[in-house]
Amino acid sequence: MIEVMRLGHRGERDKRISTHVALTSRALGASNIIFTSGDKHVHGSVDRITESWGGDFQFKVADSWKSYVKEFKKNNGVVAHLTMYGENINEIMPEIIGRVYPTEGTESNKCENQKEEPKNLLVIIGAEKVPREAYELADYNVSVGNQPHSEVAAIAIFLDRLTMGKNLYSEYEDATIRVIPCKNGKNVIMS
Amino acid sequence: MIEVMRLGHRGERDKRISTHVALTSRALGASNIIFTSGDKHVHGSVDRITESWGGDFQFKVADSWKSYVKEFKKNNGVVAHLTMYGENINEIMPEIIGRVYPTEGTESNKCENQKEEPKNLLVIIGAEKVPREAYELADYNVSVGNQPHSEVAAIAIFLDRLTMGKNLYSEYEDATIRVIPCKNGKNVIMS
Repeated sequence: MIEVMRLGHRGERDKRISTHVALTSRALGASNIIFTSGDKHVHGSVDRITESWGGDFQFKVADSWKSYVKEFKKNNGVVAHLTMYGENINEIMPEIIGRVYPTEGTESNKCENQKEEPKNLLVIIGAEKVPREAYELADYNVSVGNQPHSEVAAIAIFLDRLTMGKNLYSEYEDATIRVIPCKNGKNVIMS
Repeated sequence: MIEVMRLGHRGERDKRISTHVALTSRALGASNIIFTSGDKHVHGSVDRITESWGGDFQFKVADSWKSYVKEFKKNNGVVAHLTMYGENINEIMPEIIGRVYPTEGTESNKCENQKEEPKNLLVIIGAEKVPREAYELADYNVSVGNQPHSEVAAIAIFLDRLTMGKNLYSEYEDATIRVIPCKNGKNVIMS
């Protein structure tokens, strides 16, 4: 299970960017997004999308982000913090994939019941300045390039590489609206 | 050369998202971003980043997006339009890469002077509803998944896959600020 934590969301100022962070997380396979305080705008947008497009992506609020992260690690979860100051994603991603999906991509001759289960992953992505403790608590501080750009871009590239594009085929049984890919124009099914 | 065209930018409403689209385009190797009308906020943000972080990424305005696209195609450029209704990026990307970088990734036994130069690529990304003609003028309508998410995420994943992460190492000689990747904390060089 992949969870995304949005640290330092600043209400009105960040509402659209944080909504894009949430919807990108959902589209690329995360199960939920965790804020450190409620936000009606973002919460409402997430719920509306999930209602029409399916799945059970959740908007959650953690009273203490630090406790949440510590608890997550205690339960054998892996924590990656996306920051332009961290290690380059090109170099560190294979190690993260190997840790989260231990049997993925290996020509394993293990018996089926010896296979290790994928680990849970928490991805932290900041809005305003991220507290020092986030860098320290994270197992990985990952930079999606060392140029300033966008939290939305960072989470998008990170999750795309993590799942190797698999989630770009996501479909949900309970969706009332679906898009059928096509060369030119729009092909939408409503049910 | 990669250019990005932002269609249908709606001033105040889109200023932060469009700024993220612009900075993501820069960080992932585009040479410029083209708007269809001026925007002081986005233009100023782009110029401030380029001044400190280097390179010569440009904010441009095209009076007629249609003429711009037609002229681009006339000069042998390739046009990709990112839309959730298009063909899945997982399937269409190899064809786009082959067309933009004709000699990339092939075990070519051609003489050096027979190598084809990379083609220019224009990536169109919409804000509000994109006119029908954009779908028709584009050589490729590409969906970065068929779930609703974010223009910033779409351009990020598209450019990351196009350049295979190479531009996530970008450094510019004229930068006055640089980040040195590190495991934990911040390592910034100011000059």
